Amino acid sequence: MIATSAQQEQLFIGIDGGGTKCRATIYSASRGVLGTGLGGPANPLHGFERALESIMLSTQLAMRDAGLRVEQVHELIAGLGLAGVNLPNLYDKIMQWDHPFKQMFLTTDLHTACIGAHEGQDGAVIITGTGSCGFAIVNGQTVNYGGHGFAQGDKGSGAWMGLEAVKAVLEDLDGLGQKTALSDALKEHFQAKNAMGIAEQMAGQPSSSYAKLARFVLAAADAGDVVAKAIVQEGADYISRLAKRLLESNPPRLTMIGGLAEPLQKWLAPDVAIRVEPAIQPPEMGAIYFAQHALAAHSKEVG
Amino acid sequence: MIATSAQQEQLFIGIDGGGTKCRATIYSASRGVLGTGLGGPANPLHGFERALESIMLSTQLAMRDAGLRVEQVHELIAGLGLAGVNLPNLYDKIMQWDHPFKQMFLTTDLHTACIGAHEGQDGAVIITGTGSCGFAIVNGQTVNYGGHGFAQGDKGSGAWMGLEAVKAVLEDLDGLGQKTALSDALKEHFQAKNAMGIAEQMAGQPSSSYAKLARFVLAAADAGDVVAKAIVQEGADYISRLAKRLLESNPPRLTMIGGLAEPLQKWLAPDVAIRVEPAIQPPEMGAIYFAQHALAAHSKEVG
Repeated sequence: MIATSAQQEQLFIGIDGGGTKCRATIYSASRGVLGTGLGGPANPLHGFERALESIMLSTQLAMRDAGLRVEQVHELIAGLGLAGVNLPNLYDKIMQWDHPFKQMFLTTDLHTACIGAHEGQDGAVIITGTGSCGFAIVNGQTVNYGGHGFAQGDKGSGAWMGLEAVKAVLEDLDGLGQKTALSDALKEHFQAKNAMGIAEQMAGQPSSSYAKLARFVLAAADAGDVVAKAIVQEGADYISRLAKRLLESNPPRLTMIGGLAEPLQKWLAPDVAIRVEPAIQPPEMGAIYFAQHALAAHSKEVG
Repeated sequence: MIATSAQQEQLFIGIDGGGTKCRATIYSASRGVLGTGLGGPANPLHGFERALESIMLSTQLAMRDAGLRVEQVHELIAGLGLAGVNLPNLYDKIMQWDHPFKQMFLTTDLHTACIGAHEGQDGAVIITGTGSCGFAIVNGQTVNYGGHGFAQGDKGSGAWMGLEAVKAVLEDLDGLGQKTALSDALKEHFQAKNAMGIAEQMAGQPSSSYAKLARFVLAAADAGDVVAKAIVQEGADYISRLAKRLLESNPPRLTMIGGLAEPLQKWLAPDVAIRVEPAIQPPEMGAIYFAQHALAAHSKEVG
């Protein structure tokens, strides 16, 4: 009975770390969500130390929110869903981190998003935010498409859309491409007189900077601009193909999350759009389920 | 008479600094080319200190080749054509550099390439190597198109071609795109089993790494691969539009230089291809003409 009571009181922290922010949620089985915290960028591919700092900041804020003492971090069992750790090198590097938690279980942000979206049940998830990718879990098997990173992958994402817009505008302003309303929109946004004025400000910028331009593309597409419509449709077509590829695994549910999930909805193939259902829980809760599940499996192995 | 003789003996150094290498040539009006030197990458946008190091290395090697003493660097009048200095901030930063030369005149690598290609006369030049851009000088007026940098600009360049190839291969290997022979070529090149194996190796790589893949695209296009042909044709179409835009200024000559100039030739629009003539002098000599011209203008102003 004492063991059971202690287990019920075990505190979990679920951490969802992506390219622009890191969310942490503290949870106990008996009392539910106790506190949440928000940190900065946590994609270790784009800055390893920065990612660890964001993880620790969101952890500390969640602990304060939950009314925990600083040293109680050693009592937490952590589930981490992190962008970039599909790369084996990064996975190993994070696992070698001298973390402060009682135990830490690590997987990709896609995996925890999928677990959260379907509350631990089988299903598929497409993320379309700064980046894009697809993931499904069916009968213990996982599949994973896209998510190859800016600028070579992540088609249909905000960063991809922003980059395509900049490319189209630079061609238009050079008199080498189709006229587009995006040119005036970006010239105003960047307070730039010409192509070089825009190019200079975007040179070497990370995916998050390009993703900020996606709203201009969506707005221009809605207003009927031919170039913007072609960009959004090309991106949405890729997302539709991604969804169909995931549905080949016969997941019972399909969810789309991320900032572009809602605006892209009407551009998707109708047979895909009709399959999209809302996420039941956020990725941070998926990270907690992941840790609980891994812990149970771990206990079984040890016991 | 003494002044004239001294002026004839004035040594010039012409430096052409681009994304992958830096070439220096030492020249005197009476004796012609005295020595040459080759250094590493010298695009200050991709590494300011590195660019200065490459400039100094190529200078030292050219001086040694010319049989000059180290301290004679202070006697050289330098003409610099550098990538990236179309950006006003970078131009100013280089001009503030505590350089060792007697005098230094700075312009873009495009400008010096154009001066060299037409031996100081009016003309237009398109560079298609790692990057792409177009430039023309006609009746003292210059025009400049493209060259907005990887990955937002420089269409039709080696880096653009390599990036398009990686994008197509990642889609193919995910089962989301058209089949292409490029997939087997890149899997073998990267010793990768799947899309992620390629994506991981190319993540965050600079334009020069993508440009190294252009040869696979050109080879596959020549062998009839539909995807590769579409990439090369799209790039060549952009270069043809760039050429036509430059020809609107009525330059007497049009030259294409850079590693892709020759392989792209047969993909260009016929009315463009027929206009392309060889470069008369290399960009380093263009940098020397630029310095001589600037010096003469400067003397006139002072005198």
